[in-house]
Amino acid sequence: MFSLAVLSLRLRSSGCHQIRRSVATVVSGNKTSRLVRERLRQQVEDMTGLFSGFRPGLVVLQVGDRDDSNLYISTKLRAAAEIGIEAKHLRLPKTTTQEEVLQNIRSINENQSVHGLIVQLPLDSVNSIDTELITNAVSPEKDVDGLSCINAGKLSRGDLKHCFIPCTPNGCMELIRQTGVSVGGKHAVVVGRSKIVGAPMHDLLLWNNATVTTCHSKTPDLPEQVSRADILVVGVGQAEMVRGEWLKEGGVVIDCGINHIADETKPSGKRVVGDVHYASANQRAGFITPVPGGVGPMTVAMLMENTVQSAQRFLLKNQPKR
Amino acid sequence: MFSLAVLSLRLRSSGCHQIRRSVATVVSGNKTSRLVRERLRQQVEDMTGLFSGFRPGLVVLQVGDRDDSNLYISTKLRAAAEIGIEAKHLRLPKTTTQEEVLQNIRSINENQSVHGLIVQLPLDSVNSIDTELITNAVSPEKDVDGLSCINAGKLSRGDLKHCFIPCTPNGCMELIRQTGVSVGGKHAVVVGRSKIVGAPMHDLLLWNNATVTTCHSKTPDLPEQVSRADILVVGVGQAEMVRGEWLKEGGVVIDCGINHIADETKPSGKRVVGDVHYASANQRAGFITPVPGGVGPMTVAMLMENTVQSAQRFLLKNQPKR
Repeated sequence: MFSLAVLSLRLRSSGCHQIRRSVATVVSGNKTSRLVRERLRQQVEDMTGLFSGFRPGLVVLQVGDRDDSNLYISTKLRAAAEIGIEAKHLRLPKTTTQEEVLQNIRSINENQSVHGLIVQLPLDSVNSIDTELITNAVSPEKDVDGLSCINAGKLSRGDLKHCFIPCTPNGCMELIRQTGVSVGGKHAVVVGRSKIVGAPMHDLLLWNNATVTTCHSKTPDLPEQVSRADILVVGVGQAEMVRGEWLKEGGVVIDCGINHIADETKPSGKRVVGDVHYASANQRAGFITPVPGGVGPMTVAMLMENTVQSAQRFLLKNQPKR
Repeated sequence: MFSLAVLSLRLRSSGCHQIRRSVATVVSGNKTSRLVRERLRQQVEDMTGLFSGFRPGLVVLQVGDRDDSNLYISTKLRAAAEIGIEAKHLRLPKTTTQEEVLQNIRSINENQSVHGLIVQLPLDSVNSIDTELITNAVSPEKDVDGLSCINAGKLSRGDLKHCFIPCTPNGCMELIRQTGVSVGGKHAVVVGRSKIVGAPMHDLLLWNNATVTTCHSKTPDLPEQVSRADILVVGVGQAEMVRGEWLKEGGVVIDCGINHIADETKPSGKRVVGDVHYASANQRAGFITPVPGGVGPMTVAMLMENTVQSAQRFLLKNQPKR
């Protein structure tokens, strides 16, 4: 009797006479990142009020002049300015050698007014530069991208309080929190094992007490693995690879993909899609992030969060005069 | 017809008239560790032949005088001597301070005749000592236990060639190799997420291309998760927790547990069992490690392997005169 009553209510509220499952709730990264940035702006204001003249400092080091890098950097600088972070863009020419990059990093490591240092990748140099060496030259205390071995080691072994968490997975966790779905005890599936998305995402979900399965290009039964996910995070860089039919009904779907596909209806001739086929996933998931406007805007917000956190740690350690 | 013929052969070979599944093949750590140690002995002999007077050097640093630590250390020293590694036991008194331990580590880090340095845990001092700080003070180039953040970071992000792999999971991989079962594309399940077993085991399986699920104390459906494992590695420290009924038929079961339980039939009143209930697991698994004589002996063998590898890396870097 009860279920019939519910059915009848549903039919009425859906405004039609066919049984229709409601679509997933959209988890907006635009909205959530705005909230994060507003919170950070307030925190910086408080900091500056308490320690007059103090401002969190961020340096974005770039080698060369790639268009995509320029675009990403300008987004970061704009977000920083909005929050009250003192951000500097240090652009080195394409002719820069590895040793010159290292010298610059060492000098910034020692500069007490800088609390966060990120190296914009890929390095666009005519010389051969070891990216791994550069990433690990950044002082772990200023590595707000969280990409150095030491930060990765701490995160992977559960020492989340003493490391910087890479920005994209940290943004995903924030979006998962927004859904109200608790992570502990859930089965999470991560598709992809990259250094900046999949691998640290696994760590974060695991140390938030999910049972975690990591899938990748060598997983033979991806649809089956994905079908068990209460929480699914996808970061593989393949347009619309994960299909709606694969999903567990009512689950949380976080899509880290940013892929450009042809679309004749657009003036540019293309559009941006994620790694998840949104139109079908939308019909099965309980919560889903859109692309664009999902994980993307969170990444920059979390970079700002790490920078503010680094400045707070610096203040705790050094306590300048009020 | 064919299957009937096979059945008939099986019945005859089993020597009875009931259909009986054969028990799992035992994967012996005693045997495999002997093979590893013999290979290492040969490698050290070759090294000493090529670079006269050269020997791999290992220091085991102990604080205090715990009985269990003394026993472990003597096993390590004996294995080293057998292989031709120059091993020294440095025992500091219980009254040692953190700074004194750090000073000793720094001095060993600089000693060119030492290629491996392990700190026997737990530290048995009357003073408060930060174990994490001590572990990370060991130079990453000599951290043959593979427990420092830098080594963990490299392992967790797939840079297996430039790190030291923690000895117990490395031993488990060697045992899995012994079965002839390939890891790539398989579904591996790791139960436990400790720094020395579960977490690095996940990394090793993942970067050997398994799809990996990590379970732990907060996993609500452990039997179900375990039932999907082509390869199962258990390291939780709970006697006989994983039951045979949970297992996927024919899978590989690696048991890292060493637990003492009461047994009145033994003169000591107790016996050692693993984290897997052997008698039932034995009936379903395709391959299984016994306890004792499985993973245990492999841990010491892999410590020796890391030490020899470190000495080889040192030689490659420094090339002393022949």
